[in-house]
Amino acid sequence: MSTLTVPAQVPSVTEDCEQLRKAFEGRGTNKQLIISILAHRNAAQRKLIRQTYADTCGEDLLKSLGKELTNDFERVVLLGTLDRAERDAFLANEATKRWTSSNQVLMEIACTRFSKQLIEARQAYHARYKKSLEEDVGYHTNGDFRKLLLPLVTAYRYEGDEVNITLAKSEAKILNEKISDKAYNDEDLIRILATRSKAQINATLNQYKNCLVHPEHYFEKILHLAINKQGTDEGALTRVVTTWAEVDLKVIKDEYQRNGVPLDRAVVKDTSGDYEKMLLALLGHGDA
Amino acid sequence: MSTLTVPAQVPSVTEDCEQLRKAFEGRGTNKQLIISILAHRNAAQRKLIRQTYADTCGEDLLKSLGKELTNDFERVVLLGTLDRAERDAFLANEATKRWTSSNQVLMEIACTRFSKQLIEARQAYHARYKKSLEEDVGYHTNGDFRKLLLPLVTAYRYEGDEVNITLAKSEAKILNEKISDKAYNDEDLIRILATRSKAQINATLNQYKNCLVHPEHYFEKILHLAINKQGTDEGALTRVVTTWAEVDLKVIKDEYQRNGVPLDRAVVKDTSGDYEKMLLALLGHGDA
Repeated sequence: MSTLTVPAQVPSVTEDCEQLRKAFEGRGTNKQLIISILAHRNAAQRKLIRQTYADTCGEDLLKSLGKELTNDFERVVLLGTLDRAERDAFLANEATKRWTSSNQVLMEIACTRFSKQLIEARQAYHARYKKSLEEDVGYHTNGDFRKLLLPLVTAYRYEGDEVNITLAKSEAKILNEKISDKAYNDEDLIRILATRSKAQINATLNQYKNCLVHPEHYFEKILHLAINKQGTDEGALTRVVTTWAEVDLKVIKDEYQRNGVPLDRAVVKDTSGDYEKMLLALLGHGDA
Repeated sequence: MSTLTVPAQVPSVTEDCEQLRKAFEGRGTNKQLIISILAHRNAAQRKLIRQTYADTCGEDLLKSLGKELTNDFERVVLLGTLDRAERDAFLANEATKRWTSSNQVLMEIACTRFSKQLIEARQAYHARYKKSLEEDVGYHTNGDFRKLLLPLVTAYRYEGDEVNITLAKSEAKILNEKISDKAYNDEDLIRILATRSKAQINATLNQYKNCLVHPEHYFEKILHLAINKQGTDEGALTRVVTTWAEVDLKVIKDEYQRNGVPLDRAVVKDTSGDYEKMLLALLGHGDA
């Protein structure tokens, strides 16, 4: 369930572009105006705005935004404006450049997107970076981590519900053996996690709940870590909110609240200014 | 360059279906009629024929063909009728079941298709087999071969012409080291072959010509082996002719002829009956 809200009466795309141009005019930037538009349009509408803006203003909207905005607010607006595939490509590319802290970003993209979405992210990666995602992942990683990550980012999992119980039993046995031997880099263990369908892995893991099968638990944890950290982790906060606003953020929010304070209240406490406003808008606050 | 010929005046799809139905009627099958249609229609036309046939005859054309035909002729007609992605999925699935002799088929599919075609083959694999290609490849292989094959079949290579010469030099050095140490299963060697764009690999290999970059040399060799074998290898012959008829078979034929007799003459010498006729039709012989 999405948290993104779109007004009942959406202004015409020309009007939206006109307003954005106005927001950039003169000294200072009208950030509230930017939020009121870009946090309250769905992906198709944002795409149209970007096309029309480029046609009428002769500049890429993202470039204009980049000139006007800074820091966390810039990042949340840019990521929130991109479409899903472009955002994933951007996040993945960024992650290949800053390994230590952002290995998890690639894991997230590889494990929580639908198969078709992962392929689309890889296509967007070609288009933007003139190389392949796996090329950068392979080049910038090594050892056991690469052994696991490469097959994950190149996977195209079958998404049907069919489950082979005999196979689930035999592969659960393999997993048990390898995990009790702490052989986490075992080739069969990696093969099972990287190639089986989620339904099949679910059958295999059975009593476990994991990131692969229940992403909302995982992302709720990521948000908790980002917010409870000494000095909020804005990178993670922005990533999770912009990526899921139009998809499942409602579920992640509910899960978050079950474990303590409501997410919106936590965001208000930890962030400020326009960055806070944009986050809250994406979380479903304010007039659409 | 394609060798497939289509008549200047193609009969209507209804007429083609009518003729096919006639070919199946009564005792015996009119194989020449089947060849005259299915070897002389392009992929879009064949697709339409299959749809119309299913609608009007209430049976999948491939199923009807399977009932009427046998052995090598059945196989060449079925593979020749499928579209590219379906044919690749079929060949790949077959290969996962008969390892020893057909490892090379998976290598071919992984290395000689365009990135988009490989993804389409993987999609067709989902649709037909209700599981993923990498799932079957991973499950049925092991050791060094799996280590190389899995990243190859899941690759989505960048296809632009951009080449990074500094990178090509440093990776050529890696390849030289690993190959002179006979470390063919080295992780970096595999990463380079499995993730870099073909243009980049070409720059890296530079003086070498290989299957990845010049598939026509490779397939010419496969045809030579298939034909010169004691007892022709019909499986390989059918696979190469049906896969490339509509793409590059002309180039492969020219290459073949440069190394000895013309391909058509070799086919006539080694095959017979309707199987021979269908192959020759796909090689550009006979009236379209």
